[in-house]
Amino acid sequence: MFILLRPGCALKDRARILRAIEEAGLAVQVSEGHHRIVIGVVGEEDLLRGVALETFPGVESVIRLRPPYRLAARETHPDESVVAVGPTRIGGGNLAILAGPCAVEEEEQFLAAAQAVKAAGANLLRGGAYKPRTSPYDFRGLGAPGLAILRSVSREVGLPVVTEAMDTRHLDQVAQHADMIQIGTRNMQNYPLLEAAGRARMPVLLKRGRACTVSEWLCAAEYVLDAGNPSVVLCERGLVSFDPAVRNHLDLSCVPLVKRLSHLPIVVDPSHGTGRRDLVPAMARAAVAAGADGVMLEVHPRPEQALSDAQQAILPEELEALVPELRAIQEILRRHPVRIA
Amino acid sequence: MFILLRPGCALKDRARILRAIEEAGLAVQVSEGHHRIVIGVVGEEDLLRGVALETFPGVESVIRLRPPYRLAARETHPDESVVAVGPTRIGGGNLAILAGPCAVEEEEQFLAAAQAVKAAGANLLRGGAYKPRTSPYDFRGLGAPGLAILRSVSREVGLPVVTEAMDTRHLDQVAQHADMIQIGTRNMQNYPLLEAAGRARMPVLLKRGRACTVSEWLCAAEYVLDAGNPSVVLCERGLVSFDPAVRNHLDLSCVPLVKRLSHLPIVVDPSHGTGRRDLVPAMARAAVAAGADGVMLEVHPRPEQALSDAQQAILPEELEALVPELRAIQEILRRHPVRIA
Amino acid sequence: MFILLRPGCALKDRARILRAIEEAGLAVQVSEGHHRIVIGVVGEEDLLRGVALETFPGVESVIRLRPPYRLAARETHPDESVVAVGPTRIGGGNLAILAGPCAVEEEEQFLAAAQAVKAAGANLLRGGAYKPRTSPYDFRGLGAPGLAILRSVSREVGLPVVTEAMDTRHLDQVAQHADMIQIGTRNMQNYPLLEAAGRARMPVLLKRGRACTVSEWLCAAEYVLDAGNPSVVLCERGLVSFDPAVRNHLDLSCVPLVKRLSHLPIVVDPSHGTGRRDLVPAMARAAVAAGADGVMLEVHPRPEQALSDAQQAILPEELEALVPELRAIQEILRRHPVRIA
Amino acid sequence: MFILLRPGCALKDRARILRAIEEAGLAVQVSEGHHRIVIGVVGEEDLLRGVALETFPGVESVIRLRPPYRLAARETHPDESVVAVGPTRIGGGNLAILAGPCAVEEEEQFLAAAQAVKAAGANLLRGGAYKPRTSPYDFRGLGAPGLAILRSVSREVGLPVVTEAMDTRHLDQVAQHADMIQIGTRNMQNYPLLEAAGRARMPVLLKRGRACTVSEWLCAAEYVLDAGNPSVVLCERGLVSFDPAVRNHLDLSCVPLVKRLSHLPIVVDPSHGTGRRDLVPAMARAAVAAGADGVMLEVHPRPEQALSDAQQAILPEELEALVPELRAIQEILRRHPVRIA
Repeated sequence: MFILLRPGCALKDRARILRAIEEAGLAVQVSEGHHRIVIGVVGEEDLLRGVALETFPGVESVIRLRPPYRLAARETHPDESVVAVGPTRIGGGNLAILAGPCAVEEEEQFLAAAQAVKAAGANLLRGGAYKPRTSPYDFRGLGAPGLAILRSVSREVGLPVVTEAMDTRHLDQVAQHADMIQIGTRNMQNYPLLEAAGRARMPVLLKRGRACTVSEWLCAAEYVLDAGNPSVVLCERGLVSFDPAVRNHLDLSCVPLVKRLSHLPIVVDPSHGTGRRDLVPAMARAAVAAGADGVMLEVHPRPEQALSDAQQAILPEELEALVPELRAIQEILRRHPVRIA
Repeated sequence: MFILLRPGCALKDRARILRAIEEAGLAVQVSEGHHRIVIGVVGEEDLLRGVALETFPGVESVIRLRPPYRLAARETHPDESVVAVGPTRIGGGNLAILAGPCAVEEEEQFLAAAQAVKAAGANLLRGGAYKPRTSPYDFRGLGAPGLAILRSVSREVGLPVVTEAMDTRHLDQVAQHADMIQIGTRNMQNYPLLEAAGRARMPVLLKRGRACTVSEWLCAAEYVLDAGNPSVVLCERGLVSFDPAVRNHLDLSCVPLVKRLSHLPIVVDPSHGTGRRDLVPAMARAAVAAGADGVMLEVHPRPEQALSDAQQAILPEELEALVPELRAIQEILRRHPVRIA
Repeated sequence: MFILLRPGCALKDRARILRAIEEAGLAVQVSEGHHRIVIGVVGEEDLLRGVALETFPGVESVIRLRPPYRLAARETHPDESVVAVGPTRIGGGNLAILAGPCAVEEEEQFLAAAQAVKAAGANLLRGGAYKPRTSPYDFRGLGAPGLAILRSVSREVGLPVVTEAMDTRHLDQVAQHADMIQIGTRNMQNYPLLEAAGRARMPVLLKRGRACTVSEWLCAAEYVLDAGNPSVVLCERGLVSFDPAVRNHLDLSCVPLVKRLSHLPIVVDPSHGTGRRDLVPAMARAAVAAGADGVMLEVHPRPEQALSDAQQAILPEELEALVPELRAIQEILRRHPVRIA
Repeated sequence: MFILLRPGCALKDRARILRAIEEAGLAVQVSEGHHRIVIGVVGEEDLLRGVALETFPGVESVIRLRPPYRLAARETHPDESVVAVGPTRIGGGNLAILAGPCAVEEEEQFLAAAQAVKAAGANLLRGGAYKPRTSPYDFRGLGAPGLAILRSVSREVGLPVVTEAMDTRHLDQVAQHADMIQIGTRNMQNYPLLEAAGRARMPVLLKRGRACTVSEWLCAAEYVLDAGNPSVVLCERGLVSFDPAVRNHLDLSCVPLVKRLSHLPIVVDPSHGTGRRDLVPAMARAAVAAGADGVMLEVHPRPEQALSDAQQAILPEELEALVPELRAIQEILRRHPVRIA
């Protein structure tokens, strides 16, 4: 950590800063330049957490050297993590295809959709029982009965299933019926929910907030990891956009960035990430080419009958055409592996 | 509602759209132009909620005429709402000054801060017992003991108090110790929390999400209102920013926009909204000049000792200088009232 | 075009709107619903350009059906355009590799760089003689002598060359020395420059503005096309970002979106688009997988000696490893062609 | 300047960095902490411009201590600048009211508008002869004949006039007919235009780019100042917005931020800044309360007849009601002066 002093910082202010650092058990090294004085802190800068050095009189800025997350950082865990969801592996060169309708609406129809996505190559089923909706008057999911359908259909088709938990009170119930808990974009910084997911013995799919930096996202993952759950998969799903032509701006550059900063697997959701089904296949291909460990896709046999997010669902036959392309792209990357510098 | 058909929409697709509208109990009026056909829906468009017309073959776009919120809309409630928090009134030409430290850290110090802000002109005390923090390793508030301090200090200084609830499980406890429940920016779309706050018999301060539109914000308020709680105060606290010089971009244009669209009172938090204490007084003045019903300010007698957000806290003496300016600006507006067209 | 009237629009206001439409030589069709009246305009809505219907008393909103660009639209030009730059073809299934240093600094060194990128597989050379720089104190290019070096090196290595023109006064000079004129991101809406480029008999590379929508970008292309130059190639180079970890947020979803809306070729610049050389190869692969017609890459044999943008330049050997991957990805797409619905 | 080395930086890489600094004539001071080594540069960091230290092997990051602009910085010019435009003063406690129609369309009508805004309290007339328009098919101004009308009307009503120059080739002509040259938002980083404006002997109104930081904006001003023109007034006019309810997000926090960083006067344009005439008066009040030196407003006696931007123009009678409010708000600030810490 380095502390840059303002020009003309008073001696008593400087002394006070040095004292605070020393009280934290750390050593200092003072460099005096022509214009400025900088104080280098020797030792573990975490010992100064909770000391608001930025606000001490005479301080211009504080430069921290370590990221605010630990367990999520690649430097503390150089090997890439692989997360198992039932028989499906995410990370480590496997290609995860998470697919299914946005919401569970009715058993027979969900079963048909699940069979279709399995036949098309999906290895993880998705479907919402609790649906976060911008307006309270939109369809908000079946709730508990939806979870029962999820579990039953998941068993029948033989695919593990991921579904969203929106509330700490529902988390146990969700965990009983699903194989992976999704934390949605609106809840990326819902810390009590993250901690509860961290205590569940089940993998967590952590979607990125629409206006969150990669560092904030890895901090959110840190809440889950720090609560004892090592099985976190990140999911990019689009950032807030100023262009009305798309619902969100899908950020694929986060894929190689996450690979550099963290050991956690990352998948991409181009359905929410664009909001337009005509852009989904191209963005799924691009996600895999960027190095993603998988894609999450809304697939619906009859989108016009879906009660939510129908505009972004592709058809099962589109998924079927897409999967071999994704595998072929991943094969190219495997031959030319990404090297973490 | 109007439905615009694609050029060359097949007759059977058009028939299917008309059938869906009629099945909802609505009448249609078809206009054929040179290039395009448009279908006007006669009657209450809400009856078509849950019918994903956008995804019907042959549909180019659907234009809805009503906002997605009802109870929050000015058109259903022309008079401005006034929310009472203890003896303090928010809205209706009153000036609310919500002030206090970011977090409750220790009773004696919090009492001193509360006395200072009251003396400086605040009429509502703020302070956090549960603190949402980006990193799990930062100070996250005292929790339940902090709530006890809040209640005790609030009584001693004679100011009602607002504090944040982050989890449905803590909401009752928060409601017992505070006079107003804050829903923070990260939880603006935490719908279970909004519904729980809607069932509390206590005013709610609803902060805007960092990347949420005004319409999404009013939809979030609708969750609270629809659950039975009419006492919602909106709080603008800054939008995600691409400029590293500020922590957020404070959006003051939302103040007159909310006044036009809704009857709910609105206050502005320039402390979080800028993240820099040197910008806070100017932005507080601007907020009142924009028509805000009050301001929410972080005030700390010794910012360098604060465990959170110290960079944005002003001193009690700065608040004391600011309050008469805010009152004078509001007085100017009162003489030249904002007319809702 | 449809005009939605406000509830309670006065009869005289309605009559005035109808008169304005009829004066433009267009017919109307009025639909009266329960809540609202909508006026459909029958005929060519362009005849109403310059009539500010939005501001007529009684008008709530005006819905236009046609995009604001014509020549750039796929609907007026269904076949994909192919742009020839010397012997290199952009579009039509070819893979354009535009590569070279950010700026021309010195002849010998630029020649070495050009030879290296040609050997690595580039088919178009890039290099700046006029450099737009945020600060006037940064290196702003060699100007005219730089153009001479560009031309000489381009001939020697046998690659056509693209370079930026920043001013209408320099455009002819640039056109004499280069094979393609680049309009930079800061000048995407510099309309006099676009028109001047439209009068040049030379292909134009039009970079997207950092905060411009795809529609605004296609309108900028329209300026060039409308001035008589059909040879426009679009170049995505990243949007303004709130995440300090990257210089820009590269928007790859614009690639399939442009393919749907327009016939113009599109390439992607992941060097500026991310600002980090460690992310460039992954984003180049993703761009091609998204359907881009090529990539534009900063390549420098000794980045630490570059006078501008050195942080985002890759090494010639990295380019050499990348090109076969890009070709292999494009080959996969060729087998599974993108269908424009 | 400080250079932070990567963990494990090789000795030869360290030596190379030190050598580059010493070759620039600067001294170094090396601090070795537990985790990291930091090199402090003693002396004028500008001497290292053009040395891309960030890209040297072994360098993690470079921290610069000085802003990239000099002449625009308050530290080099502590007193606030006052810019004279004819008899009107901008800065120094004066209130500039720049008002008029968006575009000059016809002499008689423009004269009527000018008389109306003068009567309503404006002290600077605005009107466009060259209009930047997103689509080439929209009304782009009268050009040279419009300039003649501007000059003639300006003389007749006795108000100085500001108008936009879009091209270096038109700048002289604009300068001959106007009293102040406007550089529009799309041209904020059109450096040849900025330099040409810097050589004109006439004040410059520099609008902020829609996605530019305050630092980038002050760098753009630096181009004008560095070319020899000290008379620059900044104009905030809204940032790119993700909320379709407004055309832009007006950033008022830039007002006190500019006051802290620079000595240049700043005005605010709430017409473009919101794009909605119903929000303009409130945002004009807020701008003055934030400390702006004036406001720039689109005013049109009959907005529905305007050929451009009619949705954001207020009526002369609205301006007349607004001006005394703005003066009264400024009076409050004068009694409680903003202190630059």
